[in-house]
Formats: sequence, structure tokens, C-alpha cells
Amino acid sequence: MFSSDDELFMRRALVLAAKGRGRTSPNPMVGAVVVRGGSIVSEGYHARAGESHAEVVAIENAAGAASGADLYVTLEPCCHHGLTPPCTDRIIQAGIRRVVIPILDPNPLVSGEGVQTLREAGIIVEQGLLSEEAASLNEAFTKFITCRTPFVILKAAVSLDGKIATRTGDARWISGEQSREHVHKLRDQVDAIIVGIGTIRRDNPRLTTRLPAGGHDPIRVIVDGLGPLPLESQVLQAGAASRTWVAVASDAPPQRIEALLNRGLTVLEAGGSHGRISLELLLKRLGEREVTSVMIEGGEGVFTSAIEEGVVDKFLLFVAPMLVGGKTAPSLFGGVGVEEIGQALRLSRLRIEQLGGDVLIEGYRSKYEGTC
Amino acid sequence: MFSSDDELFMRRALVLAAKGRGRTSPNPMVGAVVVRGGSIVSEGYHARAGESHAEVVAIENAAGAASGADLYVTLEPCCHHGLTPPCTDRIIQAGIRRVVIPILDPNPLVSGEGVQTLREAGIIVEQGLLSEEAASLNEAFTKFITCRTPFVILKAAVSLDGKIATRTGDARWISGEQSREHVHKLRDQVDAIIVGIGTIRRDNPRLTTRLPAGGHDPIRVIVDGLGPLPLESQVLQAGAASRTWVAVASDAPPQRIEALLNRGLTVLEAGGSHGRISLELLLKRLGEREVTSVMIEGGEGVFTSAIEEGVVDKFLLFVAPMLVGGKTAPSLFGGVGVEEIGQALRLSRLRIEQLGGDVLIEGYRSKYEGTC
Repeated sequence: MFSSDDELFMRRALVLAAKGRGRTSPNPMVGAVVVRGGSIVSEGYHARAGESHAEVVAIENAAGAASGADLYVTLEPCCHHGLTPPCTDRIIQAGIRRVVIPILDPNPLVSGEGVQTLREAGIIVEQGLLSEEAASLNEAFTKFITCRTPFVILKAAVSLDGKIATRTGDARWISGEQSREHVHKLRDQVDAIIVGIGTIRRDNPRLTTRLPAGGHDPIRVIVDGLGPLPLESQVLQAGAASRTWVAVASDAPPQRIEALLNRGLTVLEAGGSHGRISLELLLKRLGEREVTSVMIEGGEGVFTSAIEEGVVDKFLLFVAPMLVGGKTAPSLFGGVGVEEIGQALRLSRLRIEQLGGDVLIEGYRSKYEGTC
Repeated sequence: MFSSDDELFMRRALVLAAKGRGRTSPNPMVGAVVVRGGSIVSEGYHARAGESHAEVVAIENAAGAASGADLYVTLEPCCHHGLTPPCTDRIIQAGIRRVVIPILDPNPLVSGEGVQTLREAGIIVEQGLLSEEAASLNEAFTKFITCRTPFVILKAAVSLDGKIATRTGDARWISGEQSREHVHKLRDQVDAIIVGIGTIRRDNPRLTTRLPAGGHDPIRVIVDGLGPLPLESQVLQAGAASRTWVAVASDAPPQRIEALLNRGLTVLEAGGSHGRISLELLLKRLGEREVTSVMIEGGEGVFTSAIEEGVVDKFLLFVAPMLVGGKTAPSLFGGVGVEEIGQALRLSRLRIEQLGGDVLIEGYRSKYEGTC
């Protein structure tokens, strides 16, 4: 159905889309190219939430040459008024002859409507080209728009024997330099990160994005336990506090919540009791605040709860070629664990990559099929 | 120094050598080709301990055409009388013009003597072609001949969180079918396997080699703990007992040792006390009995001792994409563990391979450089 030229143009559109990575939330990444007589006339992508959509940018860049042209866009064009007018209007207006898309808008409320609007206006719409690539690019957006909770990544640096620190809590560094650099790229791409208060107390991390070319700092969500957040924590310092949120259990003492609020922190009540929150509820709270993606960064308690609660969509494990040992050393998955191997959480769609001296193992929760 | 033809012939000799895998112990695997006028005239390899050496087989297969020919052999030819006469004699007698080898005989007692003998007879000897490949092929023999203790492989099927079983001891199956098949190939290649008595009691395994084309069963070395070996164990059944050895601590009760001997088992006293043996001493005992390679197959106690004692040369970890969990679940490396990350045992020369749904991570103890 599609020619190799079609594929080439769609691949280019996907590359353009990815340029918006980490900047479009809560919108998807979208790229578009306008093609006439087998050549690309103009390109566009959605650079940042609030700015023009990819189709509109590409059509504007075509400066009149869009009339009678083909438009390759990585997602079904929208037909509703949001911060910007419907893309379908602009496409029809520009006189586009044919629109090629990989997938429909994953938003169940509008999915298919864009295609219908275009077809009613006499435009040829073809669908299904590089659909896997396009779906994977916007896996976080798809999860969020379908479930209204963020796409959850669990990221951990782990030894071959499953430890995330030694018995004394030392974790610097399990993973190598390249892996740690990669983590900063990941932080630049997600809306928020989640860490347990133990990690704050022990390591006092900044939890910022540190890349040679800058990057955006994700919101830091600290899962509060029973002990207080030390006032000298780097996540509470000037500039950082406004982007630091604290998740507390429903029985957290009011004076404690007040103290957190007084420091300029956002407090999220997330069920549970005795200092243990419900991650499922926390994710709902985050979704309500348009957090479309989060990365859980540890420690053992938060990892274990996340695995036990079944809220992780994607695992990114930086496996370091070392053996740490220790029955009491914090591990990726502690707690009670499963009784039989058949009950273990299995990862699917595995992807393996050597990253410096480490092995990055990427996988998805087996049951995850874009369902909530 | 070497031509691409030289490399081609040596690669062929290496392929021939590998045909003896698992059959030549305590000898190395060796392959040889006789080349005249740029073509292979004949080939040979050492098929089994006690049978002819590779060089001799190749020269005999050449049936006279060896005179004036080049001989490519994967190891320095021997110049001493063993079960067979010196290969150097046969090479000189046959009128070989030039001998190409990758490496010297790793046996420190005779290393270099074969080359010297050949050179004294006026034969050109060239050395260093594909030396890494040749050394790697005979890594077990090299360790044994240098240290007089076996080459030690630690093989484990492990979850991503480092568990080798659930908290209830269930381990069937962590690794997939392809990984388990691979283990049978490994058993066919090693002289012995070591397992803890806990594994025998819990899983009652046969610990045999089960391959479609047959294979040799390694000697089973059971590390005896405090409890007795159940009489109904499969490793004690008819035919199996004679190839089952039991390692006991030096304070093992005499009546217990007698009972083991009465069942036809070989008992090895291996230091230690209170049911904990010294693996280092056990390996010495095995070396004395010409066991050149062993594979440690578990469980947590034996793995932990082996890592703590630093006796493992090579790790073969079949990492299954699952999360098992549980603070009390047996892990690859339990015990006390290290205090700081800098003290962790690091693996080098990492090799990653996807094996069915699993990831095989192969690595060497960093400090291992062929030293004892």
C-alpha cells in the first residue's frame, strides 16, 4: 500500500517529531513534512506545548506550495479547538491533496474524528505507515491520554546480584559514567521523578538535569515516610522548592504538612497510612496536574511498592558488571516477593544495549498493552 | 608478518581444535592443518585424551605430502614423552618446512621447548597468529596447567533483581528453555560440577548431561553441609554414585564419612569446620585428581562462598527478564556482602548474548590474568 518514498517521508517526520522530546508535554511529539512531486517542500514539528502544531508549522513553511501537496504527519491531525485552532481546518484551507498518518489520535474522545473531517473535505487519508514507531515515540502521551495517569518508568542502577547499594547504603557508583549521563537525558525527557525520602536523607541528591547543553529539571516528587525531610536538603534550596512536591500518607500530622507548605512545597495527599502511601493514588494526583510521565528513581522501598502495586509501565535497568552481596543490602525488589516463579513479574519487548561498561536492559510490564 | 592465507589456515585449525571440546581433558584442545602450495593437504585434531595429537593426525593424513609443507597448529607442539611420543619428532621426521603457532605451550615447565627443538632442526617457526583466540579456546587447560587447580565457572539462572529462587525455594524455571539447553552443553564440556547439598535436598536433580546427541556426564561434586545426603537422591542411584563425589569439612563425623564410602561415593576432605568447607582446598583436591574444569551450579551458599573466596574465574549468568522479590529469597550473592561499592567484585571482558527470552552475561573475574 505504501511506497518506499512514503516510508522515507514518514521516517523524516518521525525524526522531526522527536526534536520536541521533553518539551511538548502534555501534548504528544508530532512531526510533519509537505511533499510535492516526490520532494520535501517543507517541514515542521511541535516544538513546545502552547506553540504551533507540526502540521501548521509545515504548511506555513511551505508558503503556498502546500496546495495539491501530500502531508505526512506522525499522528492524526486534531479537529478540535485547544490552545490553537484545529489542524484539520488549516490542512483543508491549504488545499492539501493527501494526508498520510501512522496512527489515530490515541485520545479515545477524539480518535478518528480528524480523519473523518479531512475525508469529508475530499482529502485522501491513508493510515498505518510506521505505526509501531509512531506509537512507541508517544508511549507516554498515549498512556496519559488514555488513563489520565502518567506513564511510569522505573530506572535503577543495579548490580548483577540485584543490589542497588551495599549493606551500608553506599551506591556511588554502581553504574558507569555513560549510564549516569543517560539518566540526565532521561530526566530531561520526563515531567517528574519520584524518589523515597530515604534517598534524600542518605544521598542528599540535587535531582536536577545536568547536561552539557542544559535541559529541563523534572518536578521532584518525594515520597514522604515517617521521618522529616531535612531542611538542608538540596531539593529544598532556593529555586528548587517550587518544583519539589511531597507525597504524604493520609494520616500525616497536620503540623507536618503545614511545615512543608511553609517552605513553598506542594503537598499531595496520597492515601495509605503509617507513612506508606498508595503509589496508585499518587499517580492519579499527578495525572490531575497534567504530569504525563514520571521516572521512579528509588530507593528499595519505593521500587518494591511500585513493583508490588503493578504501576510500572517500563523498566530501565542499568546493570553494572559487579557483585555486591549482602542479605541486608538494598535490592531492586525487596519486600516479601512472590511465592512461585510463575507469579514473578515478567518483562516483555526486551531491548539490550551495552552502555560503557554497563548493560542497559529495557523492558515493559508484560500486561501493559496501553491499557490502564 | 602473517598473510590473510595464514590467518585462514589458522582459523581452520582452531575450528578443528574445538571439535575435541569436552573430550580432551586433561589435555588441551588442539587442531592442525598441513598446507602445500597454498592449499590444505590434510587436517587433524586431538579427539580424546590418550589418542593421537593433532599434529600427528594431520601429518599421517598427509600421507607423505607433508615433506616441505607448512604446518599450522593451534598450540606449540610438545617435545616430551607423555602417553604418546613427542610431536616435535614426528614433525621433523615428516620434513615439515615451517610451523605456525598462535601461542606457546602454557605449561610453564615445557613452554618454549617445542619451538626450540623445531628451530634446532632447521624448521621455520612463526608465532603469534590468532593468539587471543587460541588462548581463549584453552582457557581451562591453561588455568589447570599453570595452577594445578581447575578452571572455575560459576553458572546461575538469575532474575533481574538477583534472585536464584523465590522465598519458598521455587526456581523452576527462572531461565528459559534455550538457556537450560545451553547448560547441558556446558555440562558436556566441563570435567565436574559443584552443587551444595541444599540443592540436592530441595530439587533432587539428576545433574546429568541431557543433549539430543548424548554427551558426557561431569563428575558431580556435592558440597556436604550439616544435614545428611538423602539416600533416595538421584545422584546416588545406580550408575551415578561412582561419579558422585562428596566434599566434607575436616570435622565431619567418621561414621558419616563411612556411610558415604559404603555407598560407593568418593569423599574429599576439604578443610573448614561446622559443615563449611574451604572451596579453595576443594579445588586443590580436584586438581590433584586431574579435574581441569568445574562449573559451580548453586545454591546461594556455595555461590556466596565461591565469590567471597575469590575462586571463580568465569561467570555465566543467565539473566531472566523477571522480578521475583523477597528479602529472604535466595540470591546470587548473599552473605554479608561488601561495605563499599569500590570493594565489589567487578567482571571484565563482558560478553552479552540474547538467548531465547534471557540475556546471557558472560564475564571474567577482573583480577584473573591467567594467574593462580
